[in-house]
Amino acid sequence: MNSDANGKKWKDECGVFAIWNHPAASRLTYLGLYAIQHRGQESAGIVTLDGDRHHVHKDLGLVSEVFNDQILAALSGRAAIGHDRYSTTGMNSIFNAQPMTAQLSTGPLAIAHNGNIVNADGLKTELINQGSIFQGSSDTEVVLHLIARDTHKLLLDRVRFALERVEGAFSVVLLTGESVIAARDPHGFRPLVLGQLDDAHGDGDSGGASYVVASESCAFDLIGARLIREVKPGEIVVIDKSGIKSFFLERKEKLAQCVFEHVYFSRPDSIVFGQSVYEFRKRAGQILARETPVDVDVIIPVPDSGVPSALGYSLESRIPFEFGIIRNHYIGRTFIQPQQAIRDVGVKIKLNAQSAVLKGKRVVVVDDSLVRGTTSRKIVSLIRSSGAKEVHLRIAAPPTISPCYYGVDTPEKSQLIAANQSLESIRQFVGADSLGYLSIEGLKEAVGGTSGGYCAACFDGNYPTSLFGLDLKPKGNVRGI
Amino acid sequence: MNSDANGKKWKDECGVFAIWNHPAASRLTYLGLYAIQHRGQESAGIVTLDGDRHHVHKDLGLVSEVFNDQILAALSGRAAIGHDRYSTTGMNSIFNAQPMTAQLSTGPLAIAHNGNIVNADGLKTELINQGSIFQGSSDTEVVLHLIARDTHKLLLDRVRFALERVEGAFSVVLLTGESVIAARDPHGFRPLVLGQLDDAHGDGDSGGASYVVASESCAFDLIGARLIREVKPGEIVVIDKSGIKSFFLERKEKLAQCVFEHVYFSRPDSIVFGQSVYEFRKRAGQILARETPVDVDVIIPVPDSGVPSALGYSLESRIPFEFGIIRNHYIGRTFIQPQQAIRDVGVKIKLNAQSAVLKGKRVVVVDDSLVRGTTSRKIVSLIRSSGAKEVHLRIAAPPTISPCYYGVDTPEKSQLIAANQSLESIRQFVGADSLGYLSIEGLKEAVGGTSGGYCAACFDGNYPTSLFGLDLKPKGNVRGI
Amino acid sequence: MNSDANGKKWKDECGVFAIWNHPAASRLTYLGLYAIQHRGQESAGIVTLDGDRHHVHKDLGLVSEVFNDQILAALSGRAAIGHDRYSTTGMNSIFNAQPMTAQLSTGPLAIAHNGNIVNADGLKTELINQGSIFQGSSDTEVVLHLIARDTHKLLLDRVRFALERVEGAFSVVLLTGESVIAARDPHGFRPLVLGQLDDAHGDGDSGGASYVVASESCAFDLIGARLIREVKPGEIVVIDKSGIKSFFLERKEKLAQCVFEHVYFSRPDSIVFGQSVYEFRKRAGQILARETPVDVDVIIPVPDSGVPSALGYSLESRIPFEFGIIRNHYIGRTFIQPQQAIRDVGVKIKLNAQSAVLKGKRVVVVDDSLVRGTTSRKIVSLIRSSGAKEVHLRIAAPPTISPCYYGVDTPEKSQLIAANQSLESIRQFVGADSLGYLSIEGLKEAVGGTSGGYCAACFDGNYPTSLFGLDLKPKGNVRGI
Amino acid sequence: MNSDANGKKWKDECGVFAIWNHPAASRLTYLGLYAIQHRGQESAGIVTLDGDRHHVHKDLGLVSEVFNDQILAALSGRAAIGHDRYSTTGMNSIFNAQPMTAQLSTGPLAIAHNGNIVNADGLKTELINQGSIFQGSSDTEVVLHLIARDTHKLLLDRVRFALERVEGAFSVVLLTGESVIAARDPHGFRPLVLGQLDDAHGDGDSGGASYVVASESCAFDLIGARLIREVKPGEIVVIDKSGIKSFFLERKEKLAQCVFEHVYFSRPDSIVFGQSVYEFRKRAGQILARETPVDVDVIIPVPDSGVPSALGYSLESRIPFEFGIIRNHYIGRTFIQPQQAIRDVGVKIKLNAQSAVLKGKRVVVVDDSLVRGTTSRKIVSLIRSSGAKEVHLRIAAPPTISPCYYGVDTPEKSQLIAANQSLESIRQFVGADSLGYLSIEGLKEAVGGTSGGYCAACFDGNYPTSLFGLDLKPKGNVRGI
Repeated sequence: MNSDANGKKWKDECGVFAIWNHPAASRLTYLGLYAIQHRGQESAGIVTLDGDRHHVHKDLGLVSEVFNDQILAALSGRAAIGHDRYSTTGMNSIFNAQPMTAQLSTGPLAIAHNGNIVNADGLKTELINQGSIFQGSSDTEVVLHLIARDTHKLLLDRVRFALERVEGAFSVVLLTGESVIAARDPHGFRPLVLGQLDDAHGDGDSGGASYVVASESCAFDLIGARLIREVKPGEIVVIDKSGIKSFFLERKEKLAQCVFEHVYFSRPDSIVFGQSVYEFRKRAGQILARETPVDVDVIIPVPDSGVPSALGYSLESRIPFEFGIIRNHYIGRTFIQPQQAIRDVGVKIKLNAQSAVLKGKRVVVVDDSLVRGTTSRKIVSLIRSSGAKEVHLRIAAPPTISPCYYGVDTPEKSQLIAANQSLESIRQFVGADSLGYLSIEGLKEAVGGTSGGYCAACFDGNYPTSLFGLDLKPKGNVRGI
Repeated sequence: MNSDANGKKWKDECGVFAIWNHPAASRLTYLGLYAIQHRGQESAGIVTLDGDRHHVHKDLGLVSEVFNDQILAALSGRAAIGHDRYSTTGMNSIFNAQPMTAQLSTGPLAIAHNGNIVNADGLKTELINQGSIFQGSSDTEVVLHLIARDTHKLLLDRVRFALERVEGAFSVVLLTGESVIAARDPHGFRPLVLGQLDDAHGDGDSGGASYVVASESCAFDLIGARLIREVKPGEIVVIDKSGIKSFFLERKEKLAQCVFEHVYFSRPDSIVFGQSVYEFRKRAGQILARETPVDVDVIIPVPDSGVPSALGYSLESRIPFEFGIIRNHYIGRTFIQPQQAIRDVGVKIKLNAQSAVLKGKRVVVVDDSLVRGTTSRKIVSLIRSSGAKEVHLRIAAPPTISPCYYGVDTPEKSQLIAANQSLESIRQFVGADSLGYLSIEGLKEAVGGTSGGYCAACFDGNYPTSLFGLDLKPKGNVRGI
Repeated sequence: MNSDANGKKWKDECGVFAIWNHPAASRLTYLGLYAIQHRGQESAGIVTLDGDRHHVHKDLGLVSEVFNDQILAALSGRAAIGHDRYSTTGMNSIFNAQPMTAQLSTGPLAIAHNGNIVNADGLKTELINQGSIFQGSSDTEVVLHLIARDTHKLLLDRVRFALERVEGAFSVVLLTGESVIAARDPHGFRPLVLGQLDDAHGDGDSGGASYVVASESCAFDLIGARLIREVKPGEIVVIDKSGIKSFFLERKEKLAQCVFEHVYFSRPDSIVFGQSVYEFRKRAGQILARETPVDVDVIIPVPDSGVPSALGYSLESRIPFEFGIIRNHYIGRTFIQPQQAIRDVGVKIKLNAQSAVLKGKRVVVVDDSLVRGTTSRKIVSLIRSSGAKEVHLRIAAPPTISPCYYGVDTPEKSQLIAANQSLESIRQFVGADSLGYLSIEGLKEAVGGTSGGYCAACFDGNYPTSLFGLDLKPKGNVRGI
Repeated sequence: MNSDANGKKWKDECGVFAIWNHPAASRLTYLGLYAIQHRGQESAGIVTLDGDRHHVHKDLGLVSEVFNDQILAALSGRAAIGHDRYSTTGMNSIFNAQPMTAQLSTGPLAIAHNGNIVNADGLKTELINQGSIFQGSSDTEVVLHLIARDTHKLLLDRVRFALERVEGAFSVVLLTGESVIAARDPHGFRPLVLGQLDDAHGDGDSGGASYVVASESCAFDLIGARLIREVKPGEIVVIDKSGIKSFFLERKEKLAQCVFEHVYFSRPDSIVFGQSVYEFRKRAGQILARETPVDVDVIIPVPDSGVPSALGYSLESRIPFEFGIIRNHYIGRTFIQPQQAIRDVGVKIKLNAQSAVLKGKRVVVVDDSLVRGTTSRKIVSLIRSSGAKEVHLRIAAPPTISPCYYGVDTPEKSQLIAANQSLESIRQFVGADSLGYLSIEGLKEAVGGTSGGYCAACFDGNYPTSLFGLDLKPKGNVRGI
């Protein structure tokens, strides 16, 4: 239930996973990455620790395409980290695939990262001036170089001092020659959870506990691990032979959990920032029903992402819930719409509105969010042409008015329809009989009565960090073709 | 909403599409085949008619993999037929890919077929004895040879006499040198619908109407065509320059529409045998609720195929509907579960049960059908381990007790749990607190008060044709590897 | 030493291989096909006989691309036939790949064919009128249908009667349910040799002899088999449990072995029509030196096909032999010359003329044959630009004046420069200081004093069969795209 | 004529190419790399300079596989460098593919390298201790980091100081934001030549000269460039808008050109170290004939690499030269010999000995070098089994007794048969009637009367550099799988 009707309008950047002390480390990492595949589909990678050596495999493609049983077998060892990545395309973007690895003077180090670092450009210039060489263009490589350059004796100290210099959003996992490290930025933008596998290992190894770390708890469900708790904002968790230790970065920041993880990113079956994503969305739908009531015959979702909110809307309004739009999941990665065909196949490739359900009806259709408005316009038209008498569009989030600089790939402000047009004007554009958004207050209520702990910059424009030095223009003089 | 939880338990065999008189014939066929891709994912093919020549392209793979814009452009012409195929695997199974083509003395002929011919073996032996050479093992080739061998002057007569000899289930489309032909067996086992495209063609061609034929009406929705009516049982529809003509096979049979098209096969947004599949399933769920009531807290579906019935169950019982199980659609064609990992990943690769929704609850879970019972057992266990207090399994169809010989790839009788065990014994096997099936009477009611026009042999064992001569053992002395 | 400088100017059509009674039948067939890969590079296939069942695998590509160890292992059985094919391109040309297989009333039959049947069109029309269905466009399928249609009880009789009806060139191998059959047309156009493998099998099978059949003896060298003899013109050799039996077609024809097998087609290390190809070519070079002497400093070949003749020319003229042109074998199948680059890269991609050897020298360059003249023109220019003072072109065959209808893919007559221009005019076109061909008499001498047993129609225009009914235009109304 | 009979016994490491000021820079680089493909077949890459930006494309595979016209078109710009690489396999070895690129504080820099740096390990440790991160394991990356770390203002100074620190063999080309730089180590181990393209550009650009640099002159022949001279040992050639400038490294070393470039590596049609490789090999064959005469009937080469020496041997001995062994060039990259087949297919896959030429003859067979002896043993056996009466093996080089540390991938000393056994013992091992090597003095004579300017360490054990610190064991703690 995590993608939008007609191509993704939101692109999340990355999911991470780590495991310590399990004989099937690479295989469980593979499954964990599969469970959070929705966070990034462009490349995937796993690094394992066997003795004091790292084994690495990463490539462009889905987890299921990048790995096979033979490769997983070659990734020996009882500890591993892994990464799902969304990346802008490019034939050499393999050089941005993660985890990134390096042989430091302290031994091997691998890192996988979710988030966006707002002072990356400045740090990168500084590092290049000192003679560092970057292979790709990702923020992650900046962190790796900071650690490599640091002169502390202990690797852990290097990691701490490097992360102290990094501003913005990061949830990272690292694999060293003897430990797994998981860390989260002091704002706590991106989720990161800690779990435990009670599996008896089945390999005669007395073992002790197996620990796992993941971007979302749904990865734990798949492999049968138990969610212990979140990695805390500013926390550095070190897992090694002696067990789990916890450290904290010195600087403290205001909590700024990304509300969009609830609204759209995370899988509905994940527990994120301590609450069920599904329940959040249903609650948002309920509040939306109270805030934007309308007398209709049926409530339908834009599948899949609008489903929980539509259920909530139905629950609150006591108007029947139906699947008026059917989604075709066969779309596949390679589907290319033929250039010359009938008009407006567009959104119909994925979504079909059912006359049998909609004909002659007054309809509320619920979607998770509205960015440019072009997809909503097509969906409204689709429903109307199936015979619906009225079409009322309800959005289970406030108007999107500002771009994200913390890891969500939003279009620039000029493309955000709510940043530039009035509610009425948007309604006319999408062609709905009425249009209703969740209010900022409603959003606060949905996350638990207060938005104090959340970043909702995309909805309210209040960025929790300085944006100084942020350059959104393309950079670099080397281009892969 | 057309596939089952853990691999398909039912395999439909094939979808067909045809179009007459449209400048974008190949492209619309491509879209039509995409819309009915759920009916067969192993191979796809299109044949077009340009002047008096056929152009053909077919290959193993999904429609979106087999075709690209360049290939569609090369498939010139204003008429076309196409085929989606499910086939048992085999490296040379390209020789079974459809449409099948031949150059007859009457000109080129292509044929695409959905169904299963019960006297195929006998006909094939007869044809081989007369010197016919078969390239593959599909029933379709038998029909093609019958037509090729027939000595009537007119191709239409050849087609009629060939189809008179064929027993069992067939919905076929043919492309000749000057027409499209669509035909359906006298029992009317498999669906086949006729539609019209009102598109002005956009190519300055005065044209006249564009006609389309498809296994399911959802194909018409995607390309913007209008459903006119079903091709009738025993009817042969000929579409050519002079318009549409209708003929009927001489032999008459009792109507025997496959009820399983409603229960599982067809897309919920299709109109099949004159009624909405979605509405049928919802109605089946309602009746099921009346027949097998139970006091619970929540109704959940096995997604995606159980969704409409669960909605119906909820509607009737007035117990809330929730998505207690979330489906991961990233599974992909290439996903291979690693051999060595934790136990029981199985069904969890696709389905995750949410504690947030299920914990401490009494749950009814609704599925479309139950074949071997192994998947249901895993699903019940999944729900229970998410903290549900009680798990009541409801099946929106009667017990499956007999194999199908008309185009549904069912396991043999020994594998059908309901053919061999009591209700209580099945309940124990799946581990549910209670188990309820829809009754045969309930099924009758769901299809409109009478099952007189339906084949429900899989549920009641009443086969509408002789099974004489049917040999289910593997045949042939040539094997592709 | 079998291909021409700049793309193949001659295209041979197919190589065949068969083996009887060996535990590694599929693997030895693979090696045999690899050894005669020069006869066809577009598709490859193997059919094996295991018990009374055939296993088949064939695909587009080189032998080394089509097969791997796993596939060869699946091709179980102690008898096999195989085929290398040259075919005109087409996305569905897999339907022309050989061996072709069929299940006849007498059991399974597979056939692989080298040659060209001149009355194929007439036979095909007759067969289509009787209701036969052709999957591809190859002559081989005609033979298969003739056998299938024949009503004799014994398969061998069917084969004999079918082959009696077929005019033109064929060297075929067949695999039945209990034997390998090899046959050659009464003219003996294409080579076909019989051998024996003395290998002790290594599988504890007492066995008896293993027999092999191949287009060229070099296939025997690779697998360690011993050449026994040629399959005779008009002979049908049947190899089964009871040993080898020999039959002959009733009709007798004048021996017409293809002289071009000696001149260009066959590998130099093959024994073809009873003599060494290498020695023939060297002899042709010697005679050429006597017929077209010239006072030069050095004799160089166009590598690789001109090497033996150049050695012969050097031997006879007592002028030193040098590799003045070096061939780059890395060209690969996928090399595509960039569209925009310097002029005349053309032939230089494969051939480089060495100034170190050629500067200031008077040079004789020897090639195997000259068809259009365009390649020779480039080679002469290449040599001249390397500083050669004089360039004398010598062709170790007579002028090519007529197309072949017996299996060699020659251009049509209008493209054969010697069919349309004088010697002097050709010399001017290629830019040589002098040009000399081998005479028809010289060719006779080279093949052993008489050309009575040879077809040299490409050089003398005397076709040994009627060409009545031959239609060289494209046929058929079904086109793969 | 550059590869050995049965797999390469010598593996060269890399070829480089550069071009300045040509509108078709990427395409000519592609052709240049194709011409020197024999120097490395594992990966290929091109970097172009367009304005002040670099465009890069590199991948595993042959030049013809890595590039296509579309990619070459995207590689815009009038200057380029390229690289062919031999590399030990590994799924992530793309990280070792060259050219390597970096964005330095001075702008973009790309480097392609041929050779082996003997103090790479020490430099790498030093750089890692300073915080540099290596992506791969190649020596080239060491050079890149040295340049990046250097603090001189001018890039050229950085390059000079970096190269002053590097010991061993290197021929490098660099692309900066405004120039092409070519440099060669002071010993002059590996070849590097400078040429000019007189092509009028065809693009209306007044232009000035186009300069090219390549490992071997055969690259110039293909693109129609003129060889000007070698890049001198210790020279740094800078080509930019203002023309060509030449600088020299401060340290001077004794000239040590790799004699193995003449013996085996370079293409016979290249001019290397100022002389024709083909003529060198022929001369070596002549000297070999004088040093190791024997009364035989025929001289044959091991094709392709033994051909020129065999011609020389024949010329000197006045005994006829024949192609007694035919090479099959269809082997392809993917050919995998089936595991279960007849014994000793091995070398026969590539080479077939002709009875027609060899039967009853006393034979001298000439090969370029002899390393382990296992291939020679098979070849001698092959010739003998074709009926040769005597087989005398002649090697056109001295016994190989020491490994190379300057870029040739030789086996370790224990595997070099001549380092461990007597001549008589080797003769017995290979099974020849007699065995003769070229003497060290003969080798000196062949390179021009003196070996003063050459490194022949593989033959005489005299290494021209210190080997201190050289560690031939596998390194690094990160392993691609």
